[in-house]
Amino acid sequence: MTTHVALTARALGADRVVLEDEATQAAETTGDITDRFGGPFTIEQTDSPLGLVRGWDGVIVHLTMYGEPIQDVASAIKADGASEPLLVVVGAEKVPFEVYDRADYNVGVTNQPHSEIAALAVFLDRLFEGDELSQEWDDADKRVIPKATGKKVVDPEEEKPVDDTADPC
Amino acid sequence: MTTHVALTARALGADRVVLEDEATQAAETTGDITDRFGGPFTIEQTDSPLGLVRGWDGVIVHLTMYGEPIQDVASAIKADGASEPLLVVVGAEKVPFEVYDRADYNVGVTNQPHSEIAALAVFLDRLFEGDELSQEWDDADKRVIPKATGKKVVDPEEEKPVDDTADPC
Repeated sequence: MTTHVALTARALGADRVVLEDEATQAAETTGDITDRFGGPFTIEQTDSPLGLVRGWDGVIVHLTMYGEPIQDVASAIKADGASEPLLVVVGAEKVPFEVYDRADYNVGVTNQPHSEIAALAVFLDRLFEGDELSQEWDDADKRVIPKATGKKVVDPEEEKPVDDTADPC
Repeated sequence: MTTHVALTARALGADRVVLEDEATQAAETTGDITDRFGGPFTIEQTDSPLGLVRGWDGVIVHLTMYGEPIQDVASAIKADGASEPLLVVVGAEKVPFEVYDRADYNVGVTNQPHSEIAALAVFLDRLFEGDELSQEWDDADKRVIPKATGKKVVDPEEEKPVDDTADPC
């Protein structure tokens, strides 16, 4: 689950992710994907996520099903985030109340229980207004060329296909 | 992971989900959430996901990082889906080539590796153009009232708070 959170952050426009120290596997996998598919994207780890929140010099958004509807607060967040670094907090089941309290925005992507990965994805897509979908990736060994059917992956340096087949399996 | 896929489908506007027979826990959890937070939302299970795809009378969208960019095909999918039932296929790691082949649209939410939950969330949000975020829920025992800080949950029938506290924990 943490790996999906981190990969979603990378793919949908965040420039870094800070994971808990325990999330070794998620950090490794995300680093490996960044090596192969490009960056820039920074992976950090911390023994105190709450410390990060306490010390954050910028806007803090906490995604929670109890928060204000994203459609109501997205414009204000975009305006605030344009001039200051924006931290998006994605919690597991039990988030300390201090996070709710320190957040500038507690935001619900619906007020229904679903998935922090889904909430993060919709939040980032709306924050970046779709621009994140066509971002360029630097220093990639692999680049996927979109296909209507099948799978095409190229090495961007050599401009030759590393994998091009009608059957992706 | 399957539970998050199913809950994301429910929260973001799908009217049903079809899970594999093995996904008993995901089906139960999603049913329980639907009982408590409302519907309509149908949970089905099948011993043949491929059979479902083969027999689908309508539009088939397969979410894959190898597919065409969502920003390029969303309008066409919306037009097709307006008149026919739309099936969104979210696969695990190894999806048979037949799914790519039978899909009317193989769609990438970015061509980067991330999360099928994130891809489904962005796809549904764009398909429904945000209308899904404010949908009404029938027969709910619990309804979350959005709050800037804290947590408020009411029983829609009795219109009284079942939980209203500044500290959601």
